[in-house]
Amino acid sequence: MVYITRIEKFNAAHKLWVEQWSEEENQARFGKCSNKNWHGHNYYLHVTVKGEPDPITGFIVNVKDLSVVIKKSVVDHLDHSNLNLDVPFIPKGMQPTTENLVKVIWGQLVGPVAELGGQLHKLTLWETDSIYAEYYGE
Amino acid sequence: MVYITRIEKFNAAHKLWVEQWSEEENQARFGKCSNKNWHGHNYYLHVTVKGEPDPITGFIVNVKDLSVVIKKSVVDHLDHSNLNLDVPFIPKGMQPTTENLVKVIWGQLVGPVAELGGQLHKLTLWETDSIYAEYYGE
Amino acid sequence: MVYITRIEKFNAAHKLWVEQWSEEENQARFGKCSNKNWHGHNYYLHVTVKGEPDPITGFIVNVKDLSVVIKKSVVDHLDHSNLNLDVPFIPKGMQPTTENLVKVIWGQLVGPVAELGGQLHKLTLWETDSIYAEYYGE
Amino acid sequence: MVYITRIEKFNAAHKLWVEQWSEEENQARFGKCSNKNWHGHNYYLHVTVKGEPDPITGFIVNVKDLSVVIKKSVVDHLDHSNLNLDVPFIPKGMQPTTENLVKVIWGQLVGPVAELGGQLHKLTLWETDSIYAEYYGE
Amino acid sequence: MVYITRIEKFNAAHKLWVEQWSEEENQARFGKCSNKNWHGHNYYLHVTVKGEPDPITGFIVNVKDLSVVIKKSVVDHLDHSNLNLDVPFIPKGMQPTTENLVKVIWGQLVGPVAELGGQLHKLTLWETDSIYAEYYGE
Amino acid sequence: MVYITRIEKFNAAHKLWVEQWSEEENQARFGKCSNKNWHGHNYYLHVTVKGEPDPITGFIVNVKDLSVVIKKSVVDHLDHSNLNLDVPFIPKGMQPTTENLVKVIWGQLVGPVAELGGQLHKLTLWETDSIYAEYYGE
Repeated sequence: MVYITRIEKFNAAHKLWVEQWSEEENQARFGKCSNKNWHGHNYYLHVTVKGEPDPITGFIVNVKDLSVVIKKSVVDHLDHSNLNLDVPFIPKGMQPTTENLVKVIWGQLVGPVAELGGQLHKLTLWETDSIYAEYYGE
Repeated sequence: MVYITRIEKFNAAHKLWVEQWSEEENQARFGKCSNKNWHGHNYYLHVTVKGEPDPITGFIVNVKDLSVVIKKSVVDHLDHSNLNLDVPFIPKGMQPTTENLVKVIWGQLVGPVAELGGQLHKLTLWETDSIYAEYYGE
Repeated sequence: MVYITRIEKFNAAHKLWVEQWSEEENQARFGKCSNKNWHGHNYYLHVTVKGEPDPITGFIVNVKDLSVVIKKSVVDHLDHSNLNLDVPFIPKGMQPTTENLVKVIWGQLVGPVAELGGQLHKLTLWETDSIYAEYYGE
Repeated sequence: MVYITRIEKFNAAHKLWVEQWSEEENQARFGKCSNKNWHGHNYYLHVTVKGEPDPITGFIVNVKDLSVVIKKSVVDHLDHSNLNLDVPFIPKGMQPTTENLVKVIWGQLVGPVAELGGQLHKLTLWETDSIYAEYYGE
Repeated sequence: MVYITRIEKFNAAHKLWVEQWSEEENQARFGKCSNKNWHGHNYYLHVTVKGEPDPITGFIVNVKDLSVVIKKSVVDHLDHSNLNLDVPFIPKGMQPTTENLVKVIWGQLVGPVAELGGQLHKLTLWETDSIYAEYYGE
Repeated sequence: MVYITRIEKFNAAHKLWVEQWSEEENQARFGKCSNKNWHGHNYYLHVTVKGEPDPITGFIVNVKDLSVVIKKSVVDHLDHSNLNLDVPFIPKGMQPTTENLVKVIWGQLVGPVAELGGQLHKLTLWETDSIYAEYYGE
């Protein structure tokens, strides 16, 4: 079993804000992340697929095909978006934390990666150069 | 003459949008950067100060003092902000491109750096890992 | 189960030196790392916490709280320190190799991370850009 | 159990090309990677060894010895080489994809690392800054 | 005057080899870089354009247009190429050192950048993470 | 005129401490950098040489020769050293700040680089990932 990873990027705005809470409660819990006027990040997404390299091509999946799938299923929706408002597959009211985003992105990728003939193994999502979340699908 | 640089970071939302233009014109000129709901970036700011190292301390300016000045004059205002809406020293209607931001930030830093005893030489502002602007104050 | 990581940094001096050995033995085994007058590194510490994101906040633990805990429990003690001489929780005579340090740091963090409501999963400690150690607590 | 990793680099040329296929088939499957005149990469190899740190030295294996072993067993053969033509331990006709290379490199390292007193745990091979393969030996 | 930089990448093979020299002379002068079967690199190209930001758009040049121009004029020709054999605008027999490449690339970009309304100021070409060349056009 | 840069690394210990000052004065001015027991850094040194590429070899100077010169003249003396105590060409009592170090290193390199046939143009010394000093020899 070998693991192959492709990294893609997107830039997006978001805020952390619980509707049922007052502004003070949001500020107390989320600090500057609750700024009503949003802030944003350059995100890096690592998509790891496992399998046996094909004996002819040496590919688990063709990384260029994988890149196309990630762009179509994830990056085209998230890049230059507002993660709270713009993305159909992000549930309204879900906080767009790195932890939650990585789970939502998994749902977008697991099917298309399987269609490529690979098995989605792990996602890593970097929000800044000092914060990242990892998810293995369960 | 020696040059000393301190790097600081901030995360912010913005959009590129000319009020006098239609949505189509904005989209045609700015593409995804004109998304009405904003997008955002992790910015890296390099602040370069020139001077002669002090014969006793070996400092042009104390880099820790410089860091405090950058935070107070720039980062505290820009971090987790909306660059179009939230920042008093960014003129309303000015497009918050990397080129324009670096000029505005210069205005914030040139005085406080002089008070530290240094001379502001250059600013470099990274918007993504493939775009940056540089400014020498003129 | 999702994994969230926070990275913090510290700069420190150390040397590798076994008291019971002669200078020649230390030099033979540790090379330049045994320089009596010390050398040093910029360390990067990845702290990975696992758990389920809270359904309201989307946090496993608040990364800002995690950062405060890492600073208080680890970085405030190690930053600008001598790892052989200055740090109460590093046993005297223990070689401050990356492998040993990562185990000692685990002991400092596992309790405070649990108090935050998370479970410490993994530590990664980079000593240079080509050496790092990882530890899962057992 | 602690894990220690050493990173080494090499620069090499390669192409992806199946002899039994026509030029069109190779182009269709491998795209620009099938350029007959080769292309190349700066590769980064992470070699992870597991074990208990020695109670005296604090080493799982001496990272400097590990570096020497990686250079002798892998880097000296691959650096500034043509991965399709020049390397005795890369089977002729095997596509030099990142996935296949990482398995071949494992075979070169597992014995020499054991002689150092460590157990090879994992290899990670970066081909570009957005593609890497990982292998655990099975 | 503000400076805006766009970074693009390409992967390529090359060798350093003077036809008039014997194999021994090439080996003596160029070492492993003279391997007849080629080696390769991941190159990073920084393209710096100077000018005044437009008062309406805030652009010196639209960085997305600049990216298109760099791809069309440079990257599409160099990516996945053999720098000694494949590229019409690299003179035959010219050694494809970083120093020479950066001058040749300047010739490809100075006109198209002027057509965008900017002035090409500087090119920086990274060959590895420890070697880069810079050129200002004269 | 083209500029070619080679980057080399060294790890070292140091402290900032003025002998004529009391411990309180040192602490007030230098903070944690005045820890009597030292701290340390991973330094990165960029050495930039200018000249015309040789019409045959394409080299300003052979970067491998340049690397040897930097190691012999600088890195072999500074790597795994104590910058206050161990280095003959660092004047006793000079604070080993990044600003002062870059000037001292210039003195070590300007002659040997000229012997290689190049002209030393600039040095950049990174002390951490957020502090660097630059020097052009005057």
